[in-house]
Amino acid sequence: MAEGITPREQSYADWYVDIVTKAGLADYSPVKGCMVIKPRGYALWENIQRELDRRFKETGHQNAYFPMLIPESFLKKEAEHVEGFSPELAVVTYAGGEKLDEPLVMRPTSETIIWSMYKKWVQSYRDLPILINQWANVIRWEKRTRLFLRTTEFLWQEGHTAHATKEEAIEETLKMLEVYRQFAEEFMAIPVVTGKKTELEKFAGAIETYSIEAMMQDRRALQAGTSHFLGQNFAKAFDVTFQNPQGELEFVWATSWGVSTRLVGALVMTHSDNKGLILPPKLAPTQLVIIPIFRKDSAEQIKTYAQQIAQELRPHVRLEIDADEQASPGWKFAEWELRGVPLRLEVGPKDRENNKVCLVRRDSGEKIFVDRAQARAKVEELLTEIQHSLYQRALEFRNQNIFEPTTYEEFKQLFEGEGAKGWALIPFCGDPQVEKKIKEETKATIRCLPLDRLGQPVERPCVITGKEAKVWAIFGKAY
Amino acid sequence: MAEGITPREQSYADWYVDIVTKAGLADYSPVKGCMVIKPRGYALWENIQRELDRRFKETGHQNAYFPMLIPESFLKKEAEHVEGFSPELAVVTYAGGEKLDEPLVMRPTSETIIWSMYKKWVQSYRDLPILINQWANVIRWEKRTRLFLRTTEFLWQEGHTAHATKEEAIEETLKMLEVYRQFAEEFMAIPVVTGKKTELEKFAGAIETYSIEAMMQDRRALQAGTSHFLGQNFAKAFDVTFQNPQGELEFVWATSWGVSTRLVGALVMTHSDNKGLILPPKLAPTQLVIIPIFRKDSAEQIKTYAQQIAQELRPHVRLEIDADEQASPGWKFAEWELRGVPLRLEVGPKDRENNKVCLVRRDSGEKIFVDRAQARAKVEELLTEIQHSLYQRALEFRNQNIFEPTTYEEFKQLFEGEGAKGWALIPFCGDPQVEKKIKEETKATIRCLPLDRLGQPVERPCVITGKEAKVWAIFGKAY
Repeated sequence: MAEGITPREQSYADWYVDIVTKAGLADYSPVKGCMVIKPRGYALWENIQRELDRRFKETGHQNAYFPMLIPESFLKKEAEHVEGFSPELAVVTYAGGEKLDEPLVMRPTSETIIWSMYKKWVQSYRDLPILINQWANVIRWEKRTRLFLRTTEFLWQEGHTAHATKEEAIEETLKMLEVYRQFAEEFMAIPVVTGKKTELEKFAGAIETYSIEAMMQDRRALQAGTSHFLGQNFAKAFDVTFQNPQGELEFVWATSWGVSTRLVGALVMTHSDNKGLILPPKLAPTQLVIIPIFRKDSAEQIKTYAQQIAQELRPHVRLEIDADEQASPGWKFAEWELRGVPLRLEVGPKDRENNKVCLVRRDSGEKIFVDRAQARAKVEELLTEIQHSLYQRALEFRNQNIFEPTTYEEFKQLFEGEGAKGWALIPFCGDPQVEKKIKEETKATIRCLPLDRLGQPVERPCVITGKEAKVWAIFGKAY
Repeated sequence: MAEGITPREQSYADWYVDIVTKAGLADYSPVKGCMVIKPRGYALWENIQRELDRRFKETGHQNAYFPMLIPESFLKKEAEHVEGFSPELAVVTYAGGEKLDEPLVMRPTSETIIWSMYKKWVQSYRDLPILINQWANVIRWEKRTRLFLRTTEFLWQEGHTAHATKEEAIEETLKMLEVYRQFAEEFMAIPVVTGKKTELEKFAGAIETYSIEAMMQDRRALQAGTSHFLGQNFAKAFDVTFQNPQGELEFVWATSWGVSTRLVGALVMTHSDNKGLILPPKLAPTQLVIIPIFRKDSAEQIKTYAQQIAQELRPHVRLEIDADEQASPGWKFAEWELRGVPLRLEVGPKDRENNKVCLVRRDSGEKIFVDRAQARAKVEELLTEIQHSLYQRALEFRNQNIFEPTTYEEFKQLFEGEGAKGWALIPFCGDPQVEKKIKEETKATIRCLPLDRLGQPVERPCVITGKEAKVWAIFGKAY
């Protein structure tokens, strides 16, 4: 029940865990750092999957599946890749009752196994591009884990594409970043900043990493998806060449891009409140809950009335009807609020007499009485409005919390203590040593160099060093 | 191309591998026993998933996700379970750069990890039933592997349900067996026998195992899905009890059931021929391919004509149009036959002049000319017919190849040499020692005790021993 949820103001971390566990999204497992995704959490992931999968296919991608186990030597073929991932590997050394000649690692990501296959599949420019996506589980041995946000095993999709030219690969990298941006904003109602990662923050093995970054309600940043231009790094590591139309051999160009079950964590941390989860209607497995309010003398009639309304609405909206006669209306309201269902339809004896229904918005608590004949139109209208309003609310919150400090002192104040007062958007000199120093002193890191300012002259000196600034950078404390 | 396919008569095993690889369903990976499911193979699995998932949800099940890594000690809690699976385990001993205190195994199946969670979730009869399914990858270290049929890693679904009573659990076990039967027959056009496994063949940890068994074109049996009544075995191993309405503590009753990517192998081996794959229309990602037959002087007109027809048909049928002007019609015909597309629509200059189209069935090669105005109706009619006809053909083949030998000599002739002449349906004494002896002498095993004869008096002596027969049993050589 909602009364069991730690208020957000009291402890943001506890509030988050309470919502995830009490709304039935996930549970801790007996295996260190691994979680169980419970049916209500998995239903969110299924809807995320379905919508993303549709968008991937619309942009010409196909799904495939590659082995979860990778020979250890494969990872070593790309120097930066192995350096980045080796601390996080889980290693199989025994199988079928025998010690393995070569240990196998559980995939932390699949570039290496996939490029070992692309070597078999690519000979000519006619074999390109390859536009493949994989839905899979991956393992990264994390020291500190948090439900959905950082777990040893997580579910994700990873796109891995192969191209004949650098330009085409860069175009793909940015196209998929844009697919992620639109998906996050339109479907999950999560506003994101698209940007480029610095050398320090980029993916191990990439030439350039782009990401979508979202601001959580505690003003921390959450990296919600990444898209990498891998250059020819993996083609060279696995010797994947193709004959171009002129008959010359060239190395293939690569991209990879992914989002994960972390998105469910982003969803919770963007929209929820002290009553529980709030789901954007497009994503919500149940968009509307119908709750008949019984009086003893008219219980049957009310139930019938509620069922008739349900029948009228069912073709147009994903709904459930909660006709349990044991639980009180108040208990039910709290329960469905906890679960985040965007809209509640109540019908009591009076509503029935007047041929009315009462609609209650989960996001604002607003009550709207309408004639039964208008119920369908109003429900559809409100669902659209809630979707839009959740996005707007999150957008305003984020925009209000991006600051432009003009001195390092002001900058540091944003990140004092345990939490964060917002993001800092500043002209930056671009020196990795300075970036490291800032991280040590404030725990803030460069979340991205926002795309909308990239490549433009900065015209102001670096806020940290006073030297010439090369880029605009967003700093934040990250999940 | 089809010319690269080894004829079925020459080598059934090579024929199978040729189809799987040349039709682009799967490829060998560099990891022993693990395959890569290529886009065309994965598209089949996606359609299988979507349809099964719909049927699971219709019968009240929800999806969830449990960790892939399981503490080794969990498997040991159920004696038969660990005995059955320990030879096949892959074991993680190092992770995050350190040796693990307790090794973790990669799930060969998830009963143990799931029941460790059910212990947390179940207190009262009100918490039951739990009807959960999981889509996941599993690892079983196999000595001899074959693409799709037996691979070290495979994709599957595993249902795991928890019930308050034995009756309800048995009902669930048989209900899901029936879901599998209907799915295999209606959607995949694969006729199956439903039956019970013997003690020797049942799942390690089950009280009773039921399966659907299909006959492949080489007359071997393929176990295409299983449904287990687990009794209270896992509840006892993980101490999962509930308070019944009378306030007494009882152990929970369990089922589990699964099908895997093996079904793709069953599909290939049930319907294909020497030209390649044949897909049942309901499952086929592409149901119709439109091939314009160009003549130099009218290429544009033909293309336009083909595109108009495609536009008319697209809302009603999943189609592709192959308008490549480089490849010859003959090459294209062979290519789309190899890929198994159920129906081909050809349009050439003459067809255009006469406002006709030519339809060619993949299963029979039959050509049907119809007026363009009738194209849609005819295509829909033929797809229905092909679905039905593939099922009938497979059913007749199977029925013709189930024999009832009356002596052990006759029985043995069915299984002489490398192959199998069919299945043997015989009255059997039920003695496991005899069952073992038969396996040693003939390599045939009891595929199942067919449900339609189970519980009925046998009335004839055991064909093998001459003793009193307890059951009717189907013996076959199995994949």
